[in-house]
Amino acid sequence: GRYTGRTPLVLRPGSAAEVSAILKACNAARVGVVPQAGNTGLVGGQIPHETCTEIVLSVTRLNKVRALDVDASALTVEAGATLGSVQAAAQAAGFLFPLSLASEGSCCIGGNIATNAGGVAVLAYGNMRAQVLGLEAVLADGQIWNGLSTLRKDNTGYDLKNLLIGSEGTLGVITAATLKLYSPPKDVATALVALPDLKSVAVFFRLSQSEAGAGLTAFEFMSRRALEFSLEHGGGARSPFADLPQWTVLIEISTHEAARARSVIENILTLGVEQNLLGDAVIGETLTHAQDLWRLREAISSAQKPEGGSIKHDISVPVSAIPDFIARANALVETLCPGARPVPFGHFGDGNVHYNVSQPNGADKDAFLAKWEQISRAVHGLVIECGGSISAEHGIGQMKRDELALVKSPVELGLMRTIKAALDPNGILNPGKVL
Amino acid sequence: GRYTGRTPLVLRPGSAAEVSAILKACNAARVGVVPQAGNTGLVGGQIPHETCTEIVLSVTRLNKVRALDVDASALTVEAGATLGSVQAAAQAAGFLFPLSLASEGSCCIGGNIATNAGGVAVLAYGNMRAQVLGLEAVLADGQIWNGLSTLRKDNTGYDLKNLLIGSEGTLGVITAATLKLYSPPKDVATALVALPDLKSVAVFFRLSQSEAGAGLTAFEFMSRRALEFSLEHGGGARSPFADLPQWTVLIEISTHEAARARSVIENILTLGVEQNLLGDAVIGETLTHAQDLWRLREAISSAQKPEGGSIKHDISVPVSAIPDFIARANALVETLCPGARPVPFGHFGDGNVHYNVSQPNGADKDAFLAKWEQISRAVHGLVIECGGSISAEHGIGQMKRDELALVKSPVELGLMRTIKAALDPNGILNPGKVL
Repeated sequence: GRYTGRTPLVLRPGSAAEVSAILKACNAARVGVVPQAGNTGLVGGQIPHETCTEIVLSVTRLNKVRALDVDASALTVEAGATLGSVQAAAQAAGFLFPLSLASEGSCCIGGNIATNAGGVAVLAYGNMRAQVLGLEAVLADGQIWNGLSTLRKDNTGYDLKNLLIGSEGTLGVITAATLKLYSPPKDVATALVALPDLKSVAVFFRLSQSEAGAGLTAFEFMSRRALEFSLEHGGGARSPFADLPQWTVLIEISTHEAARARSVIENILTLGVEQNLLGDAVIGETLTHAQDLWRLREAISSAQKPEGGSIKHDISVPVSAIPDFIARANALVETLCPGARPVPFGHFGDGNVHYNVSQPNGADKDAFLAKWEQISRAVHGLVIECGGSISAEHGIGQMKRDELALVKSPVELGLMRTIKAALDPNGILNPGKVL
Repeated sequence: GRYTGRTPLVLRPGSAAEVSAILKACNAARVGVVPQAGNTGLVGGQIPHETCTEIVLSVTRLNKVRALDVDASALTVEAGATLGSVQAAAQAAGFLFPLSLASEGSCCIGGNIATNAGGVAVLAYGNMRAQVLGLEAVLADGQIWNGLSTLRKDNTGYDLKNLLIGSEGTLGVITAATLKLYSPPKDVATALVALPDLKSVAVFFRLSQSEAGAGLTAFEFMSRRALEFSLEHGGGARSPFADLPQWTVLIEISTHEAARARSVIENILTLGVEQNLLGDAVIGETLTHAQDLWRLREAISSAQKPEGGSIKHDISVPVSAIPDFIARANALVETLCPGARPVPFGHFGDGNVHYNVSQPNGADKDAFLAKWEQISRAVHGLVIECGGSISAEHGIGQMKRDELALVKSPVELGLMRTIKAALDPNGILNPGKVL
């Protein structure tokens, strides 16, 4: 609900050729085109401006699975296929498609690619960019680029695929993609671990990677307050710990050997105890128990709602900078809004901190949210000081466009503008987004 | 020795600022610049033309390790550092840098990035592109882009990094990079496996992936003739098999658990026997024995030399197309040059076939090699028919520039030219390479 816009026309083409015809006409008439897929983006990238001068090009009718190549472990789908349907198609063929987001039931592959979506499986499998073997896209002038491919190795020319991935519809309209599939793990084990401070979390993360390698499929961290909220508003979840720890880590181990994950996780916990890193730990004894542990992590976002307004930051910093960043950000927030309650949690191994801030107890929600820009700019300033990114996984869209110009070097912005002008000289593709 | 060139001037800058000054001057004077790192490239990308009008910009003095970030598992090095020195720096810090090539003692990181180098560890870890977290590069007009970063997640703007990776010095000069490091495996096991046909190899590959996941760190395949040559000229290596199999696969399993890889490999072999895929198999019983098995694979290239001239193809096809491609290529070669001896081998899981062809027994070497272009064009035509790539890992350079125009779509070539013109309007960066 944060962004609204107006459009005179929504077009829903049924083929790449129809997308091509639309772009050709719009390019000739200098009409802006806003590509839209599942419409779940969080930064307003898929929403037209209020001017009512841009058409919306929805790819939701382009939703076919075009081809499954079992030997190449590759699936070719159209841009309007939902992420959930792609996961299901992969599973039906005995594979895993690892990208996983809260909105997977409605978000679409085209949008996942255009925004380089992240989610909970990035640590082991990488973000959307790492899942794309090839693309089909329509350029601003209506030319169709067929870059679909199941090849794992191809060093012939410039990497046009990665240029389009994450460009948020400003360089071309993605119509189909060939995606990588994986052999699913045969065993999974989960544990919740209590740690006294973030330095211990960092050491425990390295230890876990050392013992599990690519088998470490989740390493999520939550602050004491995040766990507290989750326990209070998470639908009856109970704490596995007698005392609430300062930091809690949810660790997940996946193995391709059957009945093997638990022994790996036990070994990691034993080493953690031997190195005096851990306070307490609990292993998911059954599938249901493991799901309960996961729910404590997953409930955090919604558990913030009963606590009032929340100012959210989708940021990343170098893993080594997380402890320092959180300490300084907490102090900064306290200065700007005394009593505000930081609720940091996130994907530790990716450096991706969901640095959310709940309003002070009993404060006025609107008055607190009015500080969004002030607090957000200050937190982002700190992120940049720490060598981090003001958008770890959501993109730039409308929301962070003006801020991008503040945090990127003039050289990089210049390069981006040069490329945009070269590929979309009339500026018809998603005008005013990103740049 | 295949490419030679002439230059009036070789410059060896000692900093990105000096690279910047050189490019600024050359851009103003419209002088071509050929970037060069370890000078091990196989397609002539780093060699100036015979015109003696282009300067060579060697990055070999830019060879410092700038920073190691243990918590972020990241190493920042300059472009002239050799791949071997980067592997050593990673190992000294308790990490693995997985890229591994025959030329690793002399090839440099800058060249590895500019050509998106591949090698033997791509199956599990990806090619060079997958190892780069951030870049520092100098643009055609001398501007320095500082895109160094240890971040694992950053969705702010266009992916300039991947545009430069694999562009073979035609879009910018890479001066430094931040590289991903990995926790090294604690156990490795190797086996050599005999299979009757390529369909069985394909099924055995999927089986191995299913049982080992990312722990399958090598799956190399060799034709009967490749193994024969290796046994005959490989320095006294003995065959582990009573009869030479039609196809031999070298499989390597790596685990982060100690003393675990052998049981994984035994399980895979047992399943392979149960499914009637395997003829025979031998496991490396000791480190030396495992190295002996590897030597049979590694000796193939040099073992072709005593057999006379060899016409080589660095190609890839979809994994599912490998059996059909090899059968048709063999027939094609026999038509073009009766008696010529195909020696296919390579990285099965990447679809990367080293489709080498040795001269007919007793033929004249020069007469055979005179057919390089004819045979190569025919083989590449078949590769394209199979949806493959005419350069899997070596790049385009001078060697395949004219052929690129034959195999790429006009849309894709047009996009590449647009980008080249936008980033290097005076065409001073590695002129006549790639495009």
